[in-house]
Order: sequence, then structure tokens, then C-alpha cells
Amino acid sequence: MSCTFCDIAAGNSPASIFYEDEVALGFLSIEPINLGHVLVIPKRHTVSLSDLNEATGRHIWTIAQRTGNVLRRSGVRCEGINIFLADGAAAFQEVFHLHIHVFPRYAGDSFTLDADWTLKPRRSELDRIAEQMRSAYRNLHG
Amino acid sequence: MSCTFCDIAAGNSPASIFYEDEVALGFLSIEPINLGHVLVIPKRHTVSLSDLNEATGRHIWTIAQRTGNVLRRSGVRCEGINIFLADGAAAFQEVFHLHIHVFPRYAGDSFTLDADWTLKPRRSELDRIAEQMRSAYRNLHG
Repeated sequence: MSCTFCDIAAGNSPASIFYEDEVALGFLSIEPINLGHVLVIPKRHTVSLSDLNEATGRHIWTIAQRTGNVLRRSGVRCEGINIFLADGAAAFQEVFHLHIHVFPRYAGDSFTLDADWTLKPRRSELDRIAEQMRSAYRNLHG
Repeated sequence: MSCTFCDIAAGNSPASIFYEDEVALGFLSIEPINLGHVLVIPKRHTVSLSDLNEATGRHIWTIAQRTGNVLRRSGVRCEGINIFLADGAAAFQEVFHLHIHVFPRYAGDSFTLDADWTLKPRRSELDRIAEQMRSAYRNLHG
């Protein structure tokens, strides 16, 4: 079972690394949305959010947050920042080693996102879902 | 200066809340990409990533990560999860109180994202940006 990001973390595959510690790695995406698009990963193989140790999650999040500050001062064009994570094929995950995308944005760049914004649920429906989630949260996390 | 999310955090504006503690709040988006789309916010007014206290950031990230697990067990249609944050108008931030989007995904839903994927920078260019970022990281975060 080979994993592209495990190969990078092990130093067996080339990558343009800007950050490394014992737990996390940050490197440039080879398919960037804009120049400066990076991925922050846990070094240990982790497929999905539900497999992610919470302490490791907090650590890679902090590196992602700092990366936002770094991008604004690194010389790449950067007027804003997006952070994106895809968990599961249905959510557009393509490499099944968890990664946080951090990418710079600027007015007039090529990035777009879209959805059917006509959904407009009623308050009663939102309240019903919130209640289901409160109950699921309690069951999972006390 | 009125802020929609501060009003919600203060209990002065209606919201379908599924999670609350002293620091963080999680509630249903009224303009969902899919049913179950939620926002996780720090209660304290925070505009951008660079204003976000790192400890608070780790806390809201953990709530966002747990929310992924919760969505998978809450009865809404959910085959995958996206986490998204927009920092700055150029990055599509619309409410200037920092928020993490967490939304369920399923095959055939209406969500799309796109970009000019033809950028394909050379390794030498990626290495140059990584070096600029390493240097900026060192200056900002030691």
C-alpha cells in the first residue's frame, strides 16, 4: 500500500517543504489553485477526520493558521486566504492521507465555488437538525 | 458597529445552535450548501485568521473536527465532509466574524469548485516559494 504523502513525509519523494516538525509537514501543492498553495499534513498516515487524533488535529490546524500569516508576508500574491479540507471521495478528497489546503487568494483569480443556493430551509427544519446534532454530539463526545 | 455573529453569540438573534461552550458556538447556516451545513465560531469578535488567538483557534478546530463525526451520525445525508474557511473579501469572506464552515457532502450534490488547473509550476519555482515561506515562518513564529 503506497501513499504519496507518506513517501514525502519519509523523505522518499521530492517535495518543496516549507515547514517540518516531528508531527507535521507543510509543503507546496504541485497542482496549485494559486502560487503559494500549500498542504499541511500529519506525518503519521491518517485517512480521514474521524481517524485524526484530536491533539494532532489541533497541531496541524495551528500550522495551517500560521501558514496564513506566512503567505501574507512571503512575496506571493495574497489578498486573502482559504483553508479547505476534503474528507471522503464524496467531498473531493483525492489523496487518502488527510491534508489541510491553505491557499492565497486575490481579486480576479480563477478560483470559484458554487452550489444550489436556493435550498433556504425553514427555521423549524434547521432547529430539527440542530437537535439531532446536539444529541449525536452528546453521544459521541459527552 | 453591529455584527450578525456577535448578535447570535449574545443570544440577541435567532439561530439553530447545536453546540455551545464558553469560547465557541456552533449553529446551522441559513444559506446551506447541503442540509447540515454549520458554522463554528469563536464567541469573542474576531475578524480574521491573523487576529485569532491560537488557543482559541485550536479549540474551534476541535469542535469543527468533532462536528464532522457528528454530521455522519445525525441523520442528514452525509457521505463526506468539507471544512472551509474564508479569510478576507478576496477569499469570499462575507461575514467579518471568523467562522469555520463544516458541511456534509454526498455523490451528486450541487457543490462545485473550480480553478485554472493549468498553472503547473516547475519544481524550481515551488522550491523558491518554499524558501521564501520558510524565511517568513522563521521571522513570524521563530
